[in-house]
Amino acid sequence: MSSPTADGSFHPRRLDELPTPALLIDADVLDANLRTMASVHPGTALRPHVKAHKCTSLARMQAAHGHTSFTCATPREVIGMALAGLGTDLLLANEVVDPRRLAAMAAVAEDTGARITIAVDSIETVTAAADAGLASVLVDVDIGLPRCGCAVDDAGRLADRASALGLEVRGVMGYEGHLMVSDDRDDQRRRVDEAVDRLLVAHAAVGGEVVSSGGTGTHHLHRLRPGVTEVQAGSYALMDSHYGAQGHPFGQACHVVGTVVSVGRRHAVADVGLKAMGMDHGNPTTEAGTVWFLSDEHVTFAPATPVSVGDRIAVVPAHIDPTMALHEEAWLVRHGEVVDRWPIDLRGW
Amino acid sequence: MSSPTADGSFHPRRLDELPTPALLIDADVLDANLRTMASVHPGTALRPHVKAHKCTSLARMQAAHGHTSFTCATPREVIGMALAGLGTDLLLANEVVDPRRLAAMAAVAEDTGARITIAVDSIETVTAAADAGLASVLVDVDIGLPRCGCAVDDAGRLADRASALGLEVRGVMGYEGHLMVSDDRDDQRRRVDEAVDRLLVAHAAVGGEVVSSGGTGTHHLHRLRPGVTEVQAGSYALMDSHYGAQGHPFGQACHVVGTVVSVGRRHAVADVGLKAMGMDHGNPTTEAGTVWFLSDEHVTFAPATPVSVGDRIAVVPAHIDPTMALHEEAWLVRHGEVVDRWPIDLRGW
Repeated sequence: MSSPTADGSFHPRRLDELPTPALLIDADVLDANLRTMASVHPGTALRPHVKAHKCTSLARMQAAHGHTSFTCATPREVIGMALAGLGTDLLLANEVVDPRRLAAMAAVAEDTGARITIAVDSIETVTAAADAGLASVLVDVDIGLPRCGCAVDDAGRLADRASALGLEVRGVMGYEGHLMVSDDRDDQRRRVDEAVDRLLVAHAAVGGEVVSSGGTGTHHLHRLRPGVTEVQAGSYALMDSHYGAQGHPFGQACHVVGTVVSVGRRHAVADVGLKAMGMDHGNPTTEAGTVWFLSDEHVTFAPATPVSVGDRIAVVPAHIDPTMALHEEAWLVRHGEVVDRWPIDLRGW
Repeated sequence: MSSPTADGSFHPRRLDELPTPALLIDADVLDANLRTMASVHPGTALRPHVKAHKCTSLARMQAAHGHTSFTCATPREVIGMALAGLGTDLLLANEVVDPRRLAAMAAVAEDTGARITIAVDSIETVTAAADAGLASVLVDVDIGLPRCGCAVDDAGRLADRASALGLEVRGVMGYEGHLMVSDDRDDQRRRVDEAVDRLLVAHAAVGGEVVSSGGTGTHHLHRLRPGVTEVQAGSYALMDSHYGAQGHPFGQACHVVGTVVSVGRRHAVADVGLKAMGMDHGNPTTEAGTVWFLSDEHVTFAPATPVSVGDRIAVVPAHIDPTMALHEEAWLVRHGEVVDRWPIDLRGW
């Protein structure tokens, strides 16, 4: 059974009718993940990061679980969320100096009433935000990951500059991305505490009601100490093999399904290649066998049990975020039936 | 200076107006690469692989250099090329069993007059091609890369089956992907010769006028011996750091340009992340400094000379094919001016 979609294109109902490679989301596992996280960080204590899925349909489900504020990584994510009616409180947790893109965000805030806040970590980014007519900022603080973020000692000065230019300074953010994965939980907790201490020193100089930090890999630690007002986790919703190995209470909700197109004596090949998989965390995995390598359009694997041409296999991404960015659509599946097609509508910049 | 495009969107003329991350193609380097390859493998002796760029505008330039037959990796590449008027002789060098996609290719062949040939390596793929109404096939032979391709001994039997089902059998193909990169040129030549020998044994059983093989990394070797009638190189047009280290006579025509958005004491950050770069061959490189790591939207690097927020850097992909698949458009640049915008219009499956 299949039915036409609004735009007239083919909309499969049966799993085996999906064109492959197909990004599948298990609705029950997703529901459970969202419920679990909402019980730990309810409402605005979680600011879900949409970069992990780039999908307004999924963001709408997160909103239905009580999270009305969101984190974004690109102007297009911000603008897409605002236009989708999810603009209650959007944080662009990234530095942008492109005047055209900043102005586009200011315009969409004006048009839709979205509240847009942008991270700043330098005089240049503060000035660019003010020049574009954006309303508010968070001061982004370096808490150990060598990426964006000002020095703790510079945070107050940047906040003053932003205020002087008419920007609302809502507080601070800092991302301890270097501590998301750890084999030593005690060491991880100690180092996250130190990172948050740095963020709180900056916050004392900056002021404001927001202290934004954390991710899926540290979400449980921010629950255990005061200070951080919101956690920016994203991967928890769909998960990947990288975070999956860390023992968090989230299930693998996303697979890329491929069709076996060739069978050799010791290996088989399915149509899930590295153009369908984020590869920066290494090879994906599959219960169908042992992955040997990926090519542009193929995964070569040693089957655990014999497979035939036309069989389907489910492949688990090692890194969910870039995997989503490679697909135009995801298929929501419940009890073996395809119940919805979700455009991955926040791709690009 | 800038001008509106046909669809009314902003079309920058100046390099510093391009929104980043921006995929840039140096027109002069591209021209030289196409000219060099056309002198080694003129006309239909080269069947350029469009998977390496996924761009009909670039394919049109390859056609202007005399190459009227093309290699594709996905049905969408085949269909897009046919609809772009580049369907003189399209080879889908990949196994497909999806009846809907196969039928779509047959339909576009009917509608546009495109000649479409598909690789087959099993009874199932032969049957699927015939059932969908496709006209012709190449028998894909395993010549050492553990991916698709039938055993040499099975090639004749598959060809007979295809003929019996009314398919034209145009010959054989085999891809020695495991030999594209080598530190030992003599060993590479010897092993490529052995691989081609296997392909020629299969060809003797199959017949037909086509023996298709090779890639950018072995294109020079197929020139030195008879047997192979056409080479499937793709990366040579734009190149990447992986092939660039192999001493081929092709220049780096493609960079991803980023804007420096944050500057730390020992590092800087630009907006070229792993969602803008194929990462399966490892980190990209930049003359701006030493790359430390990439995050979703950032490259963190140690600058070779001091940089400021707003500066631009050029990043060289380690693997061109998946890099192209992440971008919506490329900007053609000649003598420092943006002269065209090329949609990457063959993405997806």
